[in-house]
Amino acid sequence: MRFRRSIEEFGSYNPYVKGEVRIRLDKNECPFDIPDEVKEEALRRIKGAEWNRYPNVNSDSLREKIADLHGLDMRNVVVGNGGDELIALSLKLFEGDKVVISSPTFGMYSFYSRLEGLGVVDVPLREDFSLRDVENHVDGARLVVICSPNNPTGNLQDREHVERVLETGVPVLLDEAYAEFSQKSFLDLLSEHENLIVLRTFSKAFGLAAARVGYVLTSERIAERLLSIKSPFNVNFFSMKIAETALDNRRYVERIVSYIVEERERIYEQLRDCAYPSEANFLLVRLDAYDFLLERGIAVRRLEGRLKGHIRVTVGRREENDALLKALREFRGER
Amino acid sequence: MRFRRSIEEFGSYNPYVKGEVRIRLDKNECPFDIPDEVKEEALRRIKGAEWNRYPNVNSDSLREKIADLHGLDMRNVVVGNGGDELIALSLKLFEGDKVVISSPTFGMYSFYSRLEGLGVVDVPLREDFSLRDVENHVDGARLVVICSPNNPTGNLQDREHVERVLETGVPVLLDEAYAEFSQKSFLDLLSEHENLIVLRTFSKAFGLAAARVGYVLTSERIAERLLSIKSPFNVNFFSMKIAETALDNRRYVERIVSYIVEERERIYEQLRDCAYPSEANFLLVRLDAYDFLLERGIAVRRLEGRLKGHIRVTVGRREENDALLKALREFRGER
Repeated sequence: MRFRRSIEEFGSYNPYVKGEVRIRLDKNECPFDIPDEVKEEALRRIKGAEWNRYPNVNSDSLREKIADLHGLDMRNVVVGNGGDELIALSLKLFEGDKVVISSPTFGMYSFYSRLEGLGVVDVPLREDFSLRDVENHVDGARLVVICSPNNPTGNLQDREHVERVLETGVPVLLDEAYAEFSQKSFLDLLSEHENLIVLRTFSKAFGLAAARVGYVLTSERIAERLLSIKSPFNVNFFSMKIAETALDNRRYVERIVSYIVEERERIYEQLRDCAYPSEANFLLVRLDAYDFLLERGIAVRRLEGRLKGHIRVTVGRREENDALLKALREFRGER
Repeated sequence: MRFRRSIEEFGSYNPYVKGEVRIRLDKNECPFDIPDEVKEEALRRIKGAEWNRYPNVNSDSLREKIADLHGLDMRNVVVGNGGDELIALSLKLFEGDKVVISSPTFGMYSFYSRLEGLGVVDVPLREDFSLRDVENHVDGARLVVICSPNNPTGNLQDREHVERVLETGVPVLLDEAYAEFSQKSFLDLLSEHENLIVLRTFSKAFGLAAARVGYVLTSERIAERLLSIKSPFNVNFFSMKIAETALDNRRYVERIVSYIVEERERIYEQLRDCAYPSEANFLLVRLDAYDFLLERGIAVRRLEGRLKGHIRVTVGRREENDALLKALREFRGER
């Protein structure tokens, strides 16, 4: 029994912090549970069903509702067990043996690329976290991944730059997990670019991280291939019905988004000298305060590499954000 | 944008039959929903939780309960989004570029092997569906897959034969999705063989196909590697809690299993001349009755290749089985 050498490289992803945590601002979750009446309705839909039966193989009823939301056809929609599954599947579709990413960005693009045996070409973001000439590094690339708003820096990428990459013909995975918080999206580029795959999720603005449902919006040609290689019944029945109920009652999402955007701007104003502007539900902060905050029961994300000494803080409820701001004032006073 | 050639080979898995189906005996599901009181308890556990939070990254609370069930440690347990995810992950772990299967068997072993770019070596089952000298075909194999009870033939494989394969040192994935219906298992071989991965599921005897939860029982060394390459939060919160509630109330499973085994034997007695004995919740039947049954609203699985002209019928409720037997009598009378 010999393990593949490439497998040796992976360390478990461990999101758990040591110590007692009162306030969770580490996973870019929504700080509010979904409204009681939406929960009740979802539970009614679940309760009445036969749990002994497999769900629809491609989650068709959910695909239809997602298509309606975006004014597309369900043939443009593929649903996955979290966005993660769709990243991994997108990496299997095309020719080429490398993946282009732009760091600092979401770590799972590299994780799944290496797991697929692909090389990772990093075209690092500029000083201001905008894309560098990615379009000049796409030769032989299987996929280019662009995250916008970018995790963990919070900024949107430039529309013209994304278009320049798309025009090379290389397949592009555009991760828009946080798009609802920016009120801007490049979804309309789908009508012109068959090589575009836009990734969205129910885990952030929809407040359904527990359900693990992500989806892609893409051309029929790509969607058809994704459907043909994904596992049958990849989204369980319960998560599917919960996501559908959320879509049928999606006005609560607008309320969440307004609240988060308002709080985000309030935090940014107070941390202006050390925080970066953000279009997402988190802020990048140039303070090495991870341990200090954790000792006070506040979990945030500690960043590494080029962002060593920075933290990423999720925008929480007002009182949570107040506690964060108070702790950060203490931290800076102590230095 | 060029699709990889290997991707072209895949056709979508489409489990849907044309026509109106009254009786579903095609997917080896449990014919009973789980008991109302178990459902209610699961819904209570779900309702009280925060749906906006990610579930535990490795489903630890469920791993603990599964370990208890089998008298193992949770370090021997890995939980997946259906057994499918665990088959795909097991194919990534080891050195070697081919996978050994024994047809006729569950089609997804080959599907995931090809998707992983691996060759598939078929050492076909003998005439009586027992394993042929698999141990002589393991050189350079990344994984040997043995399904017992085998889908779609229903027979258990020989314990000594499984041991002979394990003793070669090659990693073995032993799919025991239907083990509860056979009352026999090779789980005890885990204590002697570090290279054994036993796959189980909540989709069959536990009556929870809607939840998509499978698990493997294996050595700590293999479990640790599987955990390190699986997606974080791969099992959603709802399915996790539902599976846990099922385990806490698992006496209902015994009732289901007794019922199914009794019905299976009743069907077998009546179809003795054309059915094969089975240790699972389905029977292999040597009748080309797929279309005939479907016209009467009964869906079964039509088999191909070496089993062309055979059908696989899931054991259903008594009245469903009566309808099946009646239709098959008509079918044989008409020939």
